Order: sequence, then structure tokens, then C-alpha cells
Amino acid sequence: MTFIIRFLVVICSLGFALLLQNYRLLSRSLPAPELNTREYWGPGSGDNYKEDTTVKPFDIKACPELIDDLKTQLSRPLKLHVPLEGIGFQYGFNSKELQNVVTYWRETYLQKWNENEANLKQFPHFETQIQGLRLHFIHVEPKLAEGKKVLPLLLLHGWPGSVREFYNLIPLLTSPNPKSEYVFEVIAPSLPGFGWSQAASKVGFGTAQIAVVMRNLMLRIGHEQFLVHGGDWGSIIGSSMAALYPQNVLAYHSNMCIAVNPLALITKAMRALFPNFFLNAEQRDFFRTFSEENSYILEETGYLHLQATKPDTIGAALTDNPIGLAAYILEKFSTWTNPAYKNLTDGGLTKQYTMDALLDNVMIYYITNSIATSQRIYAEAWSSTQIDLDRVHIKIPAGCARFKLDLMHASDGELQYKFKNLIQSTFFKDCGHFPALEVPKILYEDFIAFVKKAAL
Amino acid sequence: MTFIIRFLVVICSLGFALLLQNYRLLSRSLPAPELNTREYWGPGSGDNYKEDTTVKPFDIKACPELIDDLKTQLSRPLKLHVPLEGIGFQYGFNSKELQNVVTYWRETYLQKWNENEANLKQFPHFETQIQGLRLHFIHVEPKLAEGKKVLPLLLLHGWPGSVREFYNLIPLLTSPNPKSEYVFEVIAPSLPGFGWSQAASKVGFGTAQIAVVMRNLMLRIGHEQFLVHGGDWGSIIGSSMAALYPQNVLAYHSNMCIAVNPLALITKAMRALFPNFFLNAEQRDFFRTFSEENSYILEETGYLHLQATKPDTIGAALTDNPIGLAAYILEKFSTWTNPAYKNLTDGGLTKQYTMDALLDNVMIYYITNSIATSQRIYAEAWSSTQIDLDRVHIKIPAGCARFKLDLMHASDGELQYKFKNLIQSTFFKDCGHFPALEVPKILYEDFIAFVKKAAL
Repeated sequence: MTFIIRFLVVICSLGFALLLQNYRLLSRSLPAPELNTREYWGPGSGDNYKEDTTVKPFDIKACPELIDDLKTQLSRPLKLHVPLEGIGFQYGFNSKELQNVVTYWRETYLQKWNENEANLKQFPHFETQIQGLRLHFIHVEPKLAEGKKVLPLLLLHGWPGSVREFYNLIPLLTSPNPKSEYVFEVIAPSLPGFGWSQAASKVGFGTAQIAVVMRNLMLRIGHEQFLVHGGDWGSIIGSSMAALYPQNVLAYHSNMCIAVNPLALITKAMRALFPNFFLNAEQRDFFRTFSEENSYILEETGYLHLQATKPDTIGAALTDNPIGLAAYILEKFSTWTNPAYKNLTDGGLTKQYTMDALLDNVMIYYITNSIATSQRIYAEAWSSTQIDLDRVHIKIPAGCARFKLDLMHASDGELQYKFKNLIQSTFFKDCGHFPALEVPKILYEDFIAFVKKAAL
Repeated sequence: MTFIIRFLVVICSLGFALLLQNYRLLSRSLPAPELNTREYWGPGSGDNYKEDTTVKPFDIKACPELIDDLKTQLSRPLKLHVPLEGIGFQYGFNSKELQNVVTYWRETYLQKWNENEANLKQFPHFETQIQGLRLHFIHVEPKLAEGKKVLPLLLLHGWPGSVREFYNLIPLLTSPNPKSEYVFEVIAPSLPGFGWSQAASKVGFGTAQIAVVMRNLMLRIGHEQFLVHGGDWGSIIGSSMAALYPQNVLAYHSNMCIAVNPLALITKAMRALFPNFFLNAEQRDFFRTFSEENSYILEETGYLHLQATKPDTIGAALTDNPIGLAAYILEKFSTWTNPAYKNLTDGGLTKQYTMDALLDNVMIYYITNSIATSQRIYAEAWSSTQIDLDRVHIKIPAGCARFKLDLMHASDGELQYKFKNLIQSTFFKDCGHFPALEVPKILYEDFIAFVKKAAL
């Protein structure tokens, strides 16, 4: 062990010395690349493509035959394997709990599907066409109140989430609050390939390209300047928008800020190896140790590894497969909400969420048959041809909220190499990867405090 | 780039210098641990367990209702996503080809299911109970011929394979051949949790524990001494048997020899970095370069990463899901047979195999409902509690056949740190991960040449 430590120390010192030489080069911002804002992602050549620029109300109603078929599928005799003795979620989704989920889904959730669907429809849904793709989005005008100014806000979800994550956050954002001089006009799209938004037909539709589409969507709606909040992929797409279009993005807020440029990564490694130098006492308690972090990340990224390399295989495996889809998606809502839930036979699924909310999210993937296309974002993001924006500095105001039980965290020391105007950095001792769903009020308060600081 | 190379050279030299200090320690064999040969892996406490030591003929006949239900499942309207334009198997299983597979499966393969099932039954099948688990195996007595001696041979398959891989190899092994003074009595079990063999109910059933069970099986059949051939997991289980029970294993042959102890790994890294020092010209052409090897391994191990961490989630996703199961399994028979097949829209599936043979293998997982339990071997093998046999030297004769298009290869330089009596080391310029199915004759000839050298 001492040998390994000695070895690591030598390597790091050496690496550090060599990198110091290159520090100036690496700490400079690269220029933001100019992406083609009219690039066509629909099927075929697009030569005769004429964009339908109208914005229309959109009915998310699922076809009743699909719901009937789903009931039939969920009524098949279950052939699930028995979990190993004494096991909770340590081997993944516990099949006994999956049986409970299926029963609830069929006997309770789908019995009141009309009510659940009405709930999903509670906000105004719209569609329009951008760069060959029909896009779905929720658009909620704020409740106007005296003395309150209105700011447009783009909310970006991630995987395996959906617009459903924001359902308890939207009413807070669109209602006046004594703590804020703003109310927000919320636009929450389904990412292309997710939910009701059409998937790209062409290779290469990564996060930078999605950022272009999302900006076009905001311009289409009529907003030249707007705020962005995102989590998970939404966080990365949002920061790509901030890097590419600082003239449009007023400020960027996220519950999963990351910086993966060389200096940030080195800082991360150094922080992990020598936490006492890089973190104060409170933060040391917040961040996982080097070995905890590595083993946790390794344990939780199997899905990512598979989706980045063989998305269409796992996509085919989850298509028209409601039970598998629920296991695959809801495992994330168990472990990523709290790693300790792995030890529970029910995965603690309903400790922070209602089963209805969780199934709403699964239903969005199911009724839109979008799981396979949603998983391709991993392959595109890790493709060697993906445009790298990690060394393009973000100069607009940024706010980074961290929730302790989330998958990973970046320290301010790392983020400073990307976010040059990090005006708010918060650490919450609870909650995991889906704060909009889990603690909407806390996320909202963090957001309005950030907007206040941004002094827009 | 030069910076990175300089950095790597410095690190490697340093690491090497430090390791030289420890060379003697690391090159010594650790003693083989004594495993409990009666450990109980069935359900419950096993306190009242009384092993049924009889060996009975076993009927692998699938229930006709299951086949009818499968036909119904395969007749559902397909909801598969469209592949990205211009894509073969680069994103995983191409869904257009999957549609073809489903059509063939339903319209041709299942129409002659009786014939296919009869083909699967062509060898005598048996079952017995070992350590709480009912085990299935094929047992074929050799054709006796004057002047030929008989040797018992245990054939071990891997994932996502089955005993079906050996169907064209078994007749060769059991028939007299002028090139060999032996004929072989073949025992080919389904690994526990695979096919018709019962899965362990308890945590911790890794490759070392399976090795114990497999040895008990051979003793049960009446063989104190026998040969072992394995591929994939069968290779690792076989080498575990050789390490634990040299008194029972006469010789070990494999088409995927691996050594993962520290000195072997360092040699592997050095070989990858400085191929000219470690390989002759022919071998340099055979092995992938450092970066090719790393990126290929990374690309091909998403399934492994997922199965090692969340086997029950992906297991649930593939259970009672014939189309997803076929995609997940057959993707491996495409890419692992030849990486270049990724560029073909049909994945080259029937270039080396018949679709019937491929579907036989999928059917074995499907009719026995064993995909979920088969995947747990990854979690157990990568568990921190798994018994490490990598530093226990194998002193019995070993033969390592390598096929160029396989996933990975070990050089003799690496293998020598584990296999102390490597009497045959071969390099074949064609074929991939499933040689028993792809080139049974070549594999057979390699095997008998090895047995001859072993001079048993």
C-alpha cells in the first residue's frame, strides 16, 4: 500500500511539474466554434425541407389502444428471476419490488389513467419544427403581479428524466414570491429524441448540436434573451448554450455543474488525493473521498458505458418492454436519489417520490416509444467527432447547486476553469440527482437567490 | 502529444524500477486456497439438504405452450426505432436486421421447431445435483476404436454462449482420428445459472466457486482425472480448476487464456507500449496496438460493466423479452466474430454461422429463462469478495490458442506469470471469440496437437 501511495505521489508531482509548463496555454479560453444554426437533422436529404415555423398547441394524449395493450402486457404471468437471498438493490433492481411496481402500475395507476393523463396535461403543451425536428415543449406564462418583472427561463431535463421532473417546480417559478422581484415564463422542452420530441435521423447529434436547436426554439418562441436551468444532460446542453451563445443566455443555473477540461480534471484529481489542501472542513464532509468517489462512479456508470457504445442494442431491449423499461429507469430513481437505498428491498422508491410521479416519467418514455432514441445521446456525446466545448470559457453569470447524494460533484476549484463568473455555489446536505422532483422548493429558492445575485 | 509520451515513459520507467524491487515477491506462486467442496448454494439454509447423487437422463424438451407464446410474442407489431441513416452495427444491433431476425425466427425457425429441438437433443443429456444445484450436462461416450485410448474431457462454455457452441466440435472429439491416439469422452455442462442448470440462490458464487462445483460434477461422473477445455468464462473457470485441483486436471486448453496478475499486467502494458521489444514481426501483426486495443476493449465492454454492477436490472429487461434477448446476445456473435462486421447492416451474422445455430443459442436462454441468472457471474467475478486465483501458478500442461479477431489476446510473456507449463501457444489469423462454433475443425486440431504434446 505504501508502495502504491509513494508511486502515486511521484506520478502526480511529476505530472504537475510538467503541466505547470503548459498552464498558460491550458487556462486560455478557446474561441467558441461557429455551428451551423440551420443544420438539418430530419430524415432524408432535407433538400426540399421547408420549416414549419408555426407554434401549435400539442395534445399529448396517448392512443387508448396503446394503454389497453400496456394493461395486457402488464397482465402476463411474470417470469422474473428470484433475487439472491438477502439482497436489496445491490445487484440492480430487485425483482420482488419490480413485481410490486407492476402490480401497482396495472391495478392502480392505469385504472386512473385518465386522471394521470389529465395531470400530465395540466400545463399548456406546444409543438414546432426546428432544423427538421418536430419539438414538443411546455410553455407556461407567469402569473403577473404588481412590481414583478418577467424573465423567460428554459428548463432542460436529462436522462432518464423528462419534463415531468419539473411539474412541482413550474408553479413555484411562475408564481409571485416575496423573495423575488421576478416571475418566470417557463419553457420546458422534451429534448430531441426524448418524449414527444422527434429524434435526429443522422449521426452526430450531440450536446452542442442540441444546444443549437434549443436556442433556435427560444428564438422561435420570441426570446432573444433568457435564463437556462438544467440538470443531467440538461446541465451540459445548457452550459453548451452558455458557451456558444452568451448573447442569448442571460445566466446559467444547474444542479449538476461539471467541468471536464484538463485543468479542472487535474484539480479534481488533486482535490481527491489531497482533500485537506483543496477543501474546507465542511466541504470535506460533503465530497466523497478519492476511493469512494471512484468506486461509486464505476459502480454507477455501467448503463452509461453501454449506452455510449451500443445504444441501439439496449434500446431494442427496452422497446415495447414496459417491465424492463420500468426496472431500467426506476433503478436510477432509487440509487441516484440516495446510494443507501441500495440496501433496501424496495429501493426506497417512494421515500421521496410518489409511485405515480415515477410511473408518469416511465409512461412518457413508454407512450412515446422514445427510450431507444433517448439513449443515443450518450453515444454522440462520447463520439470522437463530438465538438468539445469544455475549454470555451463561460463568462455569463453561473450558479451551481450541489446535492450531497448526487452521483458526483465538482468543487469551485474545478469549476473556475470553465465558469469564469460563478456567482453562486451552494452545497445541500440532502437530496440526490433529481432535485426538481425531490425538493422543488429548495431548488426554487436556490434559483431565485441566484437570479437576484445575477442582477439582470 | 510528445508531452504525453514523455510523461508516460517517465511513469513507466519509474513504475518499472519500483516494481523490480518487488519482483521476487510478485513472481512467487501463492498457495492455492482450500475451498469448501461441500458449500451449499441452493435456496434456504440447506440444513436438511440431502444431495441427490443419482445421475439421470434429462429431457430438455421445451413446454409447447412456451413455444406458442413465443410465436405470439414474435407476432406483435414491431415498435423498433429506425436506425440512424447509413448505420450498420456501430450503434449496436441494427433494428432493421433485428426485424429480419424476428421474421426468420417466427416464420422459419419456429415452424420447424420440432426438428430444431431434435437437433438440440442429438447428444445424451443428463442431470445430477451438486452442492444444492441441479446441474445439466451433455455426456457423450467416444466411439471406441482399436489402438485409441480414451480421455475424459470437460468442455466449458461462456457468456452469452451455451453447450450449443460445442455441437460441431463434439463429434470430432468423440470420433477416432488418424492424427490422434486418443478419443475423448465429452462432458459439456450448462454452467450453473445458464441454460438448464440451476442458479445459485446465494451471493458469492464466483468463478472459483463454480470451479469447485465443476470438479464435483466430474468426480460424480466417475472421473478423478480429466482434461479441461474452455472459452470465455469457461476459460477462467477451467484455469481456476487447474489452479485449485492440479491432481484432477490433467491438462488445460483454452481459446481465451488470460493472466491478470500484477507482473502479467505490467508485461501487457509494456508489450502494448513497446511492441518491438516484446513481439516478433508475425506477432506484431497479430496483436492490436496499444491505442487500438484500449479503444476496442472500451467499446466492447459496456455490457460487462453493466452486468458486473447491475445484473438484475438488465436481467429483468431481457427476461420474457425474446426480441431484446436476441438483439443483446446476437450483437456479440456479430462484433466478437469480426469487428469489421460492425460496418455491415446485417452484422455479418450468417457469414460464419447459420441463423438456426444462432437462434438455437438464443432459444436455450429463452426457454430456460436463464438470461438474468447468467449475467450475475459478472457481478460475482468483479466482487471485492471474489477469491483471487491469479497469483496461483498453474503447473499442469496448458495450451493457449488465440484467434486474431477475438476481443483480446495475451502474449506468452504475460501468460508465463500464470501458466508455468505452457506447452503449446498458437496464433490463428482468422476467427473470433467463438471458435468452437465458427471453426470447430481448427480448434479440434489445435486441441489434439496439444494433447499429444502433453504426453499424458
